[in-house]
Amino acid sequence: MPILGNGFELGGYTRPDSTGFNDLPAHVWPSTARRRGADEPRPGSVEVGGVSLTEIAEEYGTPVFVVDEADFRSRCRAIAEAFRGSGNVHYASKAFLSKAIARWVREEGLHLDVASGNEMAVALAADFPAADMTFHGNNKSRSELSDAVSAGVGRIVLDSRSELRRLSEVAAEAGVVQDVLVRVKPGVEAHTHEFIATAHEDQKFGFSIASGSALAAADAVEADPNLRLVGLHCHIGSQIVDSDGFILAAERVFGVVEQLVARHGVEISEHFTILDLGGGFGIAYTAGEQPLEVAPLADEILRAVEELAQRIGIPTPHVAVEPGRAIVGPSMVTVYEVGTLKDVTVDDGVTRRYLSVDGGMSDNIRPALYRSVYDGRVVNREVSGSRIPTRVVGKHCESGDILINDAAYPDDIVEGDLFALAATGAYCYAMASRYNMLTRPPVVSVKDGAATQILRRETVQDLLSLECETPR
Amino acid sequence: MPILGNGFELGGYTRPDSTGFNDLPAHVWPSTARRRGADEPRPGSVEVGGVSLTEIAEEYGTPVFVVDEADFRSRCRAIAEAFRGSGNVHYASKAFLSKAIARWVREEGLHLDVASGNEMAVALAADFPAADMTFHGNNKSRSELSDAVSAGVGRIVLDSRSELRRLSEVAAEAGVVQDVLVRVKPGVEAHTHEFIATAHEDQKFGFSIASGSALAAADAVEADPNLRLVGLHCHIGSQIVDSDGFILAAERVFGVVEQLVARHGVEISEHFTILDLGGGFGIAYTAGEQPLEVAPLADEILRAVEELAQRIGIPTPHVAVEPGRAIVGPSMVTVYEVGTLKDVTVDDGVTRRYLSVDGGMSDNIRPALYRSVYDGRVVNREVSGSRIPTRVVGKHCESGDILINDAAYPDDIVEGDLFALAATGAYCYAMASRYNMLTRPPVVSVKDGAATQILRRETVQDLLSLECETPR
Ligand SMILES: Cc1ncc(COP(=O)(O)O)c(C=O)c1O
Ligand SMILES: Cc1ncc(COP(=O)(O)O)c(C=O)c1O
Repeated sequence: MPILGNGFELGGYTRPDSTGFNDLPAHVWPSTARRRGADEPRPGSVEVGGVSLTEIAEEYGTPVFVVDEADFRSRCRAIAEAFRGSGNVHYASKAFLSKAIARWVREEGLHLDVASGNEMAVALAADFPAADMTFHGNNKSRSELSDAVSAGVGRIVLDSRSELRRLSEVAAEAGVVQDVLVRVKPGVEAHTHEFIATAHEDQKFGFSIASGSALAAADAVEADPNLRLVGLHCHIGSQIVDSDGFILAAERVFGVVEQLVARHGVEISEHFTILDLGGGFGIAYTAGEQPLEVAPLADEILRAVEELAQRIGIPTPHVAVEPGRAIVGPSMVTVYEVGTLKDVTVDDGVTRRYLSVDGGMSDNIRPALYRSVYDGRVVNREVSGSRIPTRVVGKHCESGDILINDAAYPDDIVEGDLFALAATGAYCYAMASRYNMLTRPPVVSVKDGAATQILRRETVQDLLSLECETPR
Repeated sequence: MPILGNGFELGGYTRPDSTGFNDLPAHVWPSTARRRGADEPRPGSVEVGGVSLTEIAEEYGTPVFVVDEADFRSRCRAIAEAFRGSGNVHYASKAFLSKAIARWVREEGLHLDVASGNEMAVALAADFPAADMTFHGNNKSRSELSDAVSAGVGRIVLDSRSELRRLSEVAAEAGVVQDVLVRVKPGVEAHTHEFIATAHEDQKFGFSIASGSALAAADAVEADPNLRLVGLHCHIGSQIVDSDGFILAAERVFGVVEQLVARHGVEISEHFTILDLGGGFGIAYTAGEQPLEVAPLADEILRAVEELAQRIGIPTPHVAVEPGRAIVGPSMVTVYEVGTLKDVTVDDGVTRRYLSVDGGMSDNIRPALYRSVYDGRVVNREVSGSRIPTRVVGKHCESGDILINDAAYPDDIVEGDLFALAATGAYCYAMASRYNMLTRPPVVSVKDGAATQILRRETVQDLLSLECETPR
């Protein structure tokens, strides 16, 4: 495959399903998204939360992220119900966090995963209770640990022996016995329907089960007067759509518990009240993909865990999960304005239309970074032209600045049309850069016909505010 | 090759040259970098610009970018001399821009490339003269074009027919005849010593030479009373280390000029006073790589262009170039503090040390995005242990958060050591994100024993300043 400037491989992408370009595949778009009829205001435009995206673009400019509050909340509820209680579901704030998001998560009764001191600080600024937070990371600093302990963070996920020592010291200084989960490496690496099972996992997170270091770490926590073991944690991958990988991981975690029981007696199971299986629930980015079905998945996992607990004669632990993408991903869309259209001869006789939008790899690095695919639609009106090969690109000064690599779009899309990508809630805004000094777009939430800006657009003043005026 | 979570391929990287771990390969590190002797203050630490990196870490914290002003300026001068005049060299601000950088570029007499309205705004805020700027982009907005025209930007690089129409209108409204370059696609795609020559280029930038649209665009500018053609532009790739690709591109651009001369007579050559060959000059990221040697490269290119001009009987145009990486890349280093060290069994009997630092893919996305390699060294002291397989990772909650994939480092590196990556000047800070809400590090310039902060560290207040306080 040819490598175009900067390592971006061209060609060979999944071509998104392209039946009915004016349709909005319901499993990809936010649940309240629909295209307005001819007799409604702003006919043919797409509305989300009862608000026309055209109206949002007029008011807030483009690019703009739009988040469907009802969709977000209903995903929280569905997962909470599937896993038998909202406290078992920890929203992974790394996917996308703002104060409004923290409030919604709170109001739905979910817990929150944070992976840095600043994620915790933003959640605290929104009055999210520290007790319902779990703190992650392979390299938490001493000051992050001590901030977390003094804020009263519910659980800290231990990731290394040196962190165990640091945290013990920090907890002792604060006069606190800190609840911890021990993160283990079950040797399961899952994506989509497939998973790879290995003994050894060549990655930075967790304690290896195979090498015995997971058991040793749990033992060390047990022996530490400043720490209290409350469970074990693992995270096996992303975009997972069935339960096999989770269940194999649970079996391997129970192997550790069985050894702990053998060593310390069955009372040790009081320190295994939580089996945290991490995040990674898959969503559909394009019409041809299937999202994970959470209710049957949860049933399968919960049944398996119950059996595992029975087999070794301990009470069934709570199964916690940490979905980020599966909650926020499908609830957001990014609306761009179409700019330059260019028909490029790519081979004698073959032409590809380059459709430029007014954002790009700064607001969505995922296509360039992970070769991710997206569903794109014109959202200000219906289009009806015949389909031509089209590539959606951003406005960055880089040939790898591609949002949708290979699509077949109507040929009557014009400059000034609004073009939206669906399912941009997770890891887009959160990973946004200011490449080419493009500033972050605003995030607008919509619900019941009303739009509320939750994050404002960055300005050139924000860029300049980092400049130090040095005398020269 | 196994794909670890999120598409990061592991293994198979260039293993950086590893002779003399306390050495600093001179072609990779800033020119003033040296390791202090045993009898100097902060013995064994690395200094840049006469300032110990240990001292900088103590004063500004970690991670911190450090830029060697003398190195930066000497690269400006070397390229200016090679291309016979500082006005022929346009620093590509996309690689890294701040007001201080804009001032240095100005003081060295170079011109500036900007690729967005905000890059222009920051340069203008530093009093960089608009007349010495060239404005790039495949999808410049109408407001960017009109801001550029009213600021008096020297040259706008035309990239599409619709932009040509927009710019003509904007210039007419402003009562200005705007100088433009036409960007063409020469069908040359160059990286390192290799280039691919094709007729058709499947990318978003420029007008195709092969299809005749480059010629047609130049004709259209000629016919437009609001625009004045001053030259042609092309950009063929990145990390290029010899002249072949540039010369082939120049030949193909001269093919267009020859057709223009045939059509309009030799006077048309008055509108071809600039041949802008773009950026892409290669640097050495690791000891084993060779940087481009700019003086012989320039000689070869200038000689070839002279011959091409003589062959079609026109005066030789100025050859302009747009290096970003080759100026700022090697002048900067990123200093991290070493955190968690973890020995991971990767295969029975084989162990890899994971060395975590307090930054990662948020301050340097290039390893994850482009599989880029870097030279890393301990900079607060000399180390002497025996070499073990080591992977340098960041603190992000993502297994693909890798800075140096495969190295062999001394086993006596400890928590609290300072670890620096060299040649992080280009496309690191400029592409920095706030993933996991880690904030951007500060940038400190050093010269003659003095350190000056040019960009301050972002804080959690900067994150929160985007929040809209909505009544609930
Ligand atoms: C420990 C942990 N939990 C949860 C998540 C969230 O994953 P997702 O958004 O795929 O559900 C991640 C993602 O990297 C993770 O590392
Ligand atoms: C038009 C143009 N000029 C100059 C550059 C700078 O390239 P480099 O930093 O590799 O010199 C780029 C990089 O993408 C570019 O697109």
